[in-house]
Amino acid sequence: MANDKRIRVGIVGGAGYTGGEMIRLLLNHPDVSISFVHSRSNAGNPLYAVHADLLGETERSFTAELSNDIDVMFLCLGHGESKKFLEANDVAPHVKIIDLSQDFRLGESVKGREFVYGLPELQREQIKQAGNVANPGCFATAIQLGILPLAKAGLLTEVHTTGITGSTGAGQSLQATSHFTWRANNISTYKVLNHQHLKEIRRSLVQLQPGFEAGINFVPVRGDFPRGIWVTSYLQSDLTLEAAVQLYKDYYAGHPFTHVSEKQIDLKQVVNTNKVLLQLEKVGDKLVIHSIEDNLVKGASGQAVQNMNLMCGLDETAGLKLKSIVF
Amino acid sequence: MANDKRIRVGIVGGAGYTGGEMIRLLLNHPDVSISFVHSRSNAGNPLYAVHADLLGETERSFTAELSNDIDVMFLCLGHGESKKFLEANDVAPHVKIIDLSQDFRLGESVKGREFVYGLPELQREQIKQAGNVANPGCFATAIQLGILPLAKAGLLTEVHTTGITGSTGAGQSLQATSHFTWRANNISTYKVLNHQHLKEIRRSLVQLQPGFEAGINFVPVRGDFPRGIWVTSYLQSDLTLEAAVQLYKDYYAGHPFTHVSEKQIDLKQVVNTNKVLLQLEKVGDKLVIHSIEDNLVKGASGQAVQNMNLMCGLDETAGLKLKSIVF
Amino acid sequence: MANDKRIRVGIVGGAGYTGGEMIRLLLNHPDVSISFVHSRSNAGNPLYAVHADLLGETERSFTAELSNDIDVMFLCLGHGESKKFLEANDVAPHVKIIDLSQDFRLGESVKGREFVYGLPELQREQIKQAGNVANPGCFATAIQLGILPLAKAGLLTEVHTTGITGSTGAGQSLQATSHFTWRANNISTYKVLNHQHLKEIRRSLVQLQPGFEAGINFVPVRGDFPRGIWVTSYLQSDLTLEAAVQLYKDYYAGHPFTHVSEKQIDLKQVVNTNKVLLQLEKVGDKLVIHSIEDNLVKGASGQAVQNMNLMCGLDETAGLKLKSIVF
Amino acid sequence: MANDKRIRVGIVGGAGYTGGEMIRLLLNHPDVSISFVHSRSNAGNPLYAVHADLLGETERSFTAELSNDIDVMFLCLGHGESKKFLEANDVAPHVKIIDLSQDFRLGESVKGREFVYGLPELQREQIKQAGNVANPGCFATAIQLGILPLAKAGLLTEVHTTGITGSTGAGQSLQATSHFTWRANNISTYKVLNHQHLKEIRRSLVQLQPGFEAGINFVPVRGDFPRGIWVTSYLQSDLTLEAAVQLYKDYYAGHPFTHVSEKQIDLKQVVNTNKVLLQLEKVGDKLVIHSIEDNLVKGASGQAVQNMNLMCGLDETAGLKLKSIVF
Repeated sequence: MANDKRIRVGIVGGAGYTGGEMIRLLLNHPDVSISFVHSRSNAGNPLYAVHADLLGETERSFTAELSNDIDVMFLCLGHGESKKFLEANDVAPHVKIIDLSQDFRLGESVKGREFVYGLPELQREQIKQAGNVANPGCFATAIQLGILPLAKAGLLTEVHTTGITGSTGAGQSLQATSHFTWRANNISTYKVLNHQHLKEIRRSLVQLQPGFEAGINFVPVRGDFPRGIWVTSYLQSDLTLEAAVQLYKDYYAGHPFTHVSEKQIDLKQVVNTNKVLLQLEKVGDKLVIHSIEDNLVKGASGQAVQNMNLMCGLDETAGLKLKSIVF
Repeated sequence: MANDKRIRVGIVGGAGYTGGEMIRLLLNHPDVSISFVHSRSNAGNPLYAVHADLLGETERSFTAELSNDIDVMFLCLGHGESKKFLEANDVAPHVKIIDLSQDFRLGESVKGREFVYGLPELQREQIKQAGNVANPGCFATAIQLGILPLAKAGLLTEVHTTGITGSTGAGQSLQATSHFTWRANNISTYKVLNHQHLKEIRRSLVQLQPGFEAGINFVPVRGDFPRGIWVTSYLQSDLTLEAAVQLYKDYYAGHPFTHVSEKQIDLKQVVNTNKVLLQLEKVGDKLVIHSIEDNLVKGASGQAVQNMNLMCGLDETAGLKLKSIVF
Repeated sequence: MANDKRIRVGIVGGAGYTGGEMIRLLLNHPDVSISFVHSRSNAGNPLYAVHADLLGETERSFTAELSNDIDVMFLCLGHGESKKFLEANDVAPHVKIIDLSQDFRLGESVKGREFVYGLPELQREQIKQAGNVANPGCFATAIQLGILPLAKAGLLTEVHTTGITGSTGAGQSLQATSHFTWRANNISTYKVLNHQHLKEIRRSLVQLQPGFEAGINFVPVRGDFPRGIWVTSYLQSDLTLEAAVQLYKDYYAGHPFTHVSEKQIDLKQVVNTNKVLLQLEKVGDKLVIHSIEDNLVKGASGQAVQNMNLMCGLDETAGLKLKSIVF
Repeated sequence: MANDKRIRVGIVGGAGYTGGEMIRLLLNHPDVSISFVHSRSNAGNPLYAVHADLLGETERSFTAELSNDIDVMFLCLGHGESKKFLEANDVAPHVKIIDLSQDFRLGESVKGREFVYGLPELQREQIKQAGNVANPGCFATAIQLGILPLAKAGLLTEVHTTGITGSTGAGQSLQATSHFTWRANNISTYKVLNHQHLKEIRRSLVQLQPGFEAGINFVPVRGDFPRGIWVTSYLQSDLTLEAAVQLYKDYYAGHPFTHVSEKQIDLKQVVNTNKVLLQLEKVGDKLVIHSIEDNLVKGASGQAVQNMNLMCGLDETAGLKLKSIVF
């Protein structure tokens, strides 16, 4: 693709964690040119003043100016802020919006803009046609990818889920629970059985398995590592392990980032990549599904790029062939 | 207590992790004198050659000699090794044995020696009378203390449990899953729904709630920290939060190491102590119980000292007023 | 010691890290009774509301009231705050003061109170006679204990020192450099060749080796762990390794917390204890000295207890036989 | 570059850490096709059986067969093994060799093959012409890049250096010092003032500043993190900070991976990238230089790719625009 055909993107809220990841990913994306990185509080400062790892990568600065001379706008704002931003600013109709907040995941619209839920493994075709996409939550992505195949087969029963998240999931604000001295070597839980992502999860499940009403019991855990999400779900199932593995492989065939592992998995297999790995076990009458992702990549900015690729007719994996950290 | 009245103890298998913790605890126990620390492979070496933190604490060495001139023998051997040791060696009848392996937790006996399951919060009086005690498993301790009060009240239903353990739970052998490069910032599971501690847990539960047959679904997780166990269990319950908290406070009244917290807990509150903290939540019709412990102290050597204190008529907390690491 | 003979202590600034460690240590000290734990901002709250690990240890609360009905007062205040506190409050003349800030380490006095620098391995006898003690800094303690024997022998030359500190050294305030996401797996330096502890270090060195004017080049490093300080110093020296080890062993003979290791040391040998371990190497014409401590114990509150023991005629180790964390 | 013009490479010793990084980097290199990944012990197994993060990236397997139908061969073998391999195997003269071991860094040759020391910031032109390259050591790279500009200006004096390395520097073998339980939250040193990389460092320095004979005092430290190297060096210098910064900027102008930061740096700015960041300070008469790198990328496999790019006439940065891990 010649330079003049590159997708022009604007990033709003570029000073936060997901904003930083957007920049990192898009700087190296072969088919994208960044038009602006918006941040009111950091306007005029070089990007590397906030994202210190970008030193040597780019001399670009944050700007307080918005422009409609773009093809795609990424909103990397806090929950509730995206809606306010779109109400307060005029974004030209031709601009596709990809919102990383939770503001439009449950069917909300603003100024006539409707948002497609941006989980490619659920509805890739709808995303390709979408003008606006609501990017899924990080936990929501990992949990859904662990059980969607069962829902599609109408085999979902009450689910018991544990999810362990890295500290980046809590953003960059300084809090007691993100203080190094406290969090190092520590474990705690929050919003037990009551996490806000349950709503978007249930919405997708019902879409695939109408009438599904059983519980999704989710225990979110704060892990003592920066990046990644581990999810283990189990449920009663008549499927043999072989049948279940086949069901999952069939479901994810053709999806370039989601793979079923025959061996035991561990979180660092996917950290710093856009991949989700799944592993299944059958113990007695219970089917166990483990799923792992990087919460900032597949759980946020990487999936946003994946959605952009789909919406713009690019290769789904463009700019997302990332070197894993592994260790 | 005058010196000549001190309990004389021997430690067998003193070179491992639980053996090291036994030494650390007993060196500072006001009513104990260590008669020998047995290790065939390290005989003749100073204790600090293996347990480097003991430098400056003691000049004592490991010995290959056993002696019956003791009151209490701690067996800190691998699973299966305690039984072999007692079959191969003559331990005088007056010597009380506290075994930290899993060899005698399910009612097994050897040479006529019968073992009482050493969970003081389950059966303190039986332990006081016991000649031999089988010290509970680390996960088994944290899980049981989270649900025993419900079992005693006959209110236990199917339990869903996640447990996250520090790396010391896997001992000191060099393994792929204990390699620093792999384990740092990593998460994985093992023996999902199939952990060996489920047997001893069920045994205690049935003792309190005869006829209990519902599932105990346990997902064990390898955490990326050295010490401590976090357990979250939940189950269907008609109890209000207030009633549940009262039930737990009543159950643990008089037990010096087990406390109910009204606030959210985190693992490091108990690391390097013999305490278990519990916290309850009620979400919808589910009762959630969090329980935390140090796997090497209350989950192993500390509980062994607690059992020794009870068996020997000492104060239950003697030698166990430990400074927490906190940070 | 009967209860009525116990040393009565008051802790001022009990809500911070060193205040918390004071409480933890003194709660288990056999010869001490805590009269009050002062904190204006937390007055009325139970200690465990701030120091969550104290749940189950004590029901005591913070108080805003001060009292002179004590024997010893510990000041656990920020730098600059101790002087202000003593200027603003009347502390009875019979009350011995142990100050953990840097306010009185260089010979400063207040209201006629003069302070002895509280490094027992430098001047135990003066401490025993002291009415007031300025507790040394954490880095200052580890660095000095690594080179005092050379200074006493008049053999000190220009010193090159690296010190790596845990995050607790920076206290409990929420800062960018104590954010978990940033600090985990990270390394950085601060105040390179310019650390404030150099003044108190030089003061002690000159006391032992009058006329010493060579450089003490100190590179302080932020480590990605919560507790402990590692220091490596090297300097030109004609001493053989054997002679140097003997010099150090002679110097520290009789000091119960400072030991020379013949084997390579590692930081976790001393974490959560009041010990300092030293290890020497000779490479070419350079003598290398490694020294390790827990920054909150021997580097702060533990050393304060040690000083209290000396000032009050107690056994120097009373209340300081602490179980190491080891792992 | 069309597919048929791609550089064909073979990787020998593909099962180790540097071998794995070679694969990760080369799989995404736009101008390279991997011809074989050699490993005797893993022949026939898929790459992801050893490098689990490669699941979903490639279905390729290890092979025990070597081939001369390649342009470049990477040797990712242990120290001493590269020389043995080249003695035992016939590598065609047209095949360029890049060796990651230390076997050829000091001017050694084998079967008439001479090796150029592969530090592009020292001698990019020689590397472009080289048939064989000896890739520098990880510590050697970070230390040299911190002081080369001074050597070139003839201003180098005795250097005092501390280097802190992640655990991946010690490879994948299971050792006591790489046991998670031991290494987590721990610090230790090794080969103090005596590290093997000092030889290759001195060789480069003398090349730039003939006659340099002053000491390079290097204290290597084991850090408790997996990836990255932090180096702080200081030395006596008459340069002002401004002059020194200018000297460094001039030296590294045109070098795409090495940058001078005006702000304080921290290790995670470069982890998972091929960059080296430098920061200078002037304190009194001492010039302080901090330098950071990822030990497996710029310190090993990334630099090997950089050398290949230079040797093969590719853009120096091809395949090396890597997303940082940052957090």
